[in-house]
Amino acid sequence: MNLNLDVDLARRMTEPGDVDAALESAKAEYRRLAALGPDDGDWPVTGWFHCAEAACQLDLIKEKAAEIRQNAEVFVLVGVGGSNQAARAMIEAIQKPGGPRIVYAGNTLSACEVARVLQAIEGKSVYIDVIAKNFETLEPGSHYRVLRAAMEKRYSKEEMAKRVILTGTVGSRLEEIAKENGCTFLHFPLRVGGRYSAFTPVALLPLAVAGLDVDAYLEGGRAMEQLLAKTEGGIAAEYAAVRHALWLRGFRVEMLTAFEPRLFWAEQWWKQLFGESEGKDKKGMLPASMINSEDLHSMGQYMQDGLRILTETFLSVDDPGASVVIQPDPDFKDGFDYLDGMDFANINRAAEKATLHAHAAGGVPCVVLRLPRIDERTFGLVYYFFMVACALSGRLLGVNPFDQEGVEEYKRSMFAALGKGGVKGR
Amino acid sequence: MNLNLDVDLARRMTEPGDVDAALESAKAEYRRLAALGPDDGDWPVTGWFHCAEAACQLDLIKEKAAEIRQNAEVFVLVGVGGSNQAARAMIEAIQKPGGPRIVYAGNTLSACEVARVLQAIEGKSVYIDVIAKNFETLEPGSHYRVLRAAMEKRYSKEEMAKRVILTGTVGSRLEEIAKENGCTFLHFPLRVGGRYSAFTPVALLPLAVAGLDVDAYLEGGRAMEQLLAKTEGGIAAEYAAVRHALWLRGFRVEMLTAFEPRLFWAEQWWKQLFGESEGKDKKGMLPASMINSEDLHSMGQYMQDGLRILTETFLSVDDPGASVVIQPDPDFKDGFDYLDGMDFANINRAAEKATLHAHAAGGVPCVVLRLPRIDERTFGLVYYFFMVACALSGRLLGVNPFDQEGVEEYKRSMFAALGKGGVKGR
Repeated sequence: MNLNLDVDLARRMTEPGDVDAALESAKAEYRRLAALGPDDGDWPVTGWFHCAEAACQLDLIKEKAAEIRQNAEVFVLVGVGGSNQAARAMIEAIQKPGGPRIVYAGNTLSACEVARVLQAIEGKSVYIDVIAKNFETLEPGSHYRVLRAAMEKRYSKEEMAKRVILTGTVGSRLEEIAKENGCTFLHFPLRVGGRYSAFTPVALLPLAVAGLDVDAYLEGGRAMEQLLAKTEGGIAAEYAAVRHALWLRGFRVEMLTAFEPRLFWAEQWWKQLFGESEGKDKKGMLPASMINSEDLHSMGQYMQDGLRILTETFLSVDDPGASVVIQPDPDFKDGFDYLDGMDFANINRAAEKATLHAHAAGGVPCVVLRLPRIDERTFGLVYYFFMVACALSGRLLGVNPFDQEGVEEYKRSMFAALGKGGVKGR
Repeated sequence: MNLNLDVDLARRMTEPGDVDAALESAKAEYRRLAALGPDDGDWPVTGWFHCAEAACQLDLIKEKAAEIRQNAEVFVLVGVGGSNQAARAMIEAIQKPGGPRIVYAGNTLSACEVARVLQAIEGKSVYIDVIAKNFETLEPGSHYRVLRAAMEKRYSKEEMAKRVILTGTVGSRLEEIAKENGCTFLHFPLRVGGRYSAFTPVALLPLAVAGLDVDAYLEGGRAMEQLLAKTEGGIAAEYAAVRHALWLRGFRVEMLTAFEPRLFWAEQWWKQLFGESEGKDKKGMLPASMINSEDLHSMGQYMQDGLRILTETFLSVDDPGASVVIQPDPDFKDGFDYLDGMDFANINRAAEKATLHAHAAGGVPCVVLRLPRIDERTFGLVYYFFMVACALSGRLLGVNPFDQEGVEEYKRSMFAALGKGGVKGR
């Protein structure tokens, strides 16, 4: 089972020749990426390209996750942006029962939210995983401080060593802290940016703690890696090419649309990936997202008939994994008898198709990415597909898809405002 | 305590004269709105303009809510779009303890989500409120069917009458059903569109069930109504005018930004209001939203340095209502000593200011709407402010801010796909 990409409806709205030209360039970029070695200039940030290499420390991760699942009532994932989104998207979408409650922290500076996290661990057996590629980032650093203080009131030094996992780069202050305190240290590979870290220990430990099948997930990633390698970027190059041709045609926003609410965080992951990779040098298609059918009764009007700068990509799920049949109720006369005996799974599918055709008819270039189902292997396929597509798309746009100078600008501005030593505002 | 609107940073990025001209037009539109009477053509959809009139059946609502709070373990709000967003935004932001668990349904067609709702009511004492202005809408209608079937297995006809509240228009099939079954019937005023229904029974019952202070809320709405009446649209006209001047200057997306994650649903409400009111006739600024600081590490890069078609409106909260102080930990050397003794409330404020200045410097026109705090009265101020601002803004753009033909298009397409009698696809 694989992904299926259908760009026909969108392609019709591009200039003739644009998609083919962009596809040639995308394939060339793919070959360049695939040929990069450790001595090449771009190599430092393309360590994610080979799934097997990104997924290091797997035995240690599984062992630690088993311990956490056995002992913890609450597992706090401390991380922001690329450090939490890949894992969170899968955990929220797949929702395996059992295991500790997972609490997300280090992704806000709101006192109200910090207080909630502290409340969530009160009186519970807690483990935390502090994830920070750059351990100067304020949100995870400050949350680690307050969580540590709360935990030290209850746990001995030995217990703390067991219950705190630190995930950072080799040679960082976080690694030293792990050594000084005897904590498990997981690798945030230096050669992988946060938003490309889906197959690294950054995501793998939380996934395993949530009871997800990490092997099936990595198998999915590798399967897509092999497929793209065989086809010079294949569907990833095709998606990037159509996107670029639409960009040339004046389309400025890409809406990612799903009809399964549990894909909300997957959309967030995608927005981070594309927004941070392409939103630079005063360029880039703005990534936005919708969860239908709620948002059909909100942004649906805009999609149908608003300013025509939007493209739409449907994350379509073949097998939704659930079934609820509507029973007839002839005496009630509620006007919905035409639904008698229908399954919501089919009604939702009909809604998706109706939306696709209505939006396409309204002047929105629509792309459909079909997922076989919502499971670990599929996420492996999807993440690898989008990461390659994003890298290629950024290259076509003429930006560096691997840096994020704009985020660094905010961090500098923050540090200056808070009086951090050695930092000056601009 | 009132709202404070600061448009200075944004105004600098408009053409000289544009804001003043738009402000004159906005004030004229406000006067026109205020002067409308029952015999005027637009009157049918401006019934929301007078809060006191919108908030009908208040005693019945309070009485029923008290009964629900006493008897229910789960309260299911069945409604989509304008039928749930205003209440949900307040319930999620203010979070009063106690009362039944509130479950949102009728806003999806996903079998997986429907199954979850059915699971949530299993074995629990349940009340439901089915809200539908047009009782032909598929999502609430189908959910009412399956919830009814599940409840009828447990409850007698008398119990059902008590436990089902129906909210619809006078003269609708829903009203007949209420009469036939002895259910409480609440009014969805005919002269109020879903997205303008914040002060009607549509929102008031769920708010009261969640333990929110409905009187303080309505007082806030009335206070803003009076303020705007005294100032010919005042800050609402000003916001609409600046928005319009930015639109004329080529800005195409408005990002609503909050630093309190619990305002997520308030942003959703705002997106529905503006997206559905303005996204038509191939026009309209696309409404989008961010929750920081999570999204600073995602869309922050795009805001800082991406395509310059974005404006940003900050929902700023003066008093966050919480305090967590960072204690020194001198032995640990985590590099965050510059935060010693600081309160997250102040750090978050600093982050907001740093972001505002960084984005403004990066070429984003920034508007700041300051809220005194997150409570019922403030929501009354905010909702009324935005509803008037949206109506004025739509008029300036030259669209009808009160219809939603694009949504109707999707509904027609859906009905045709599902074989509903008498409906043909286009």
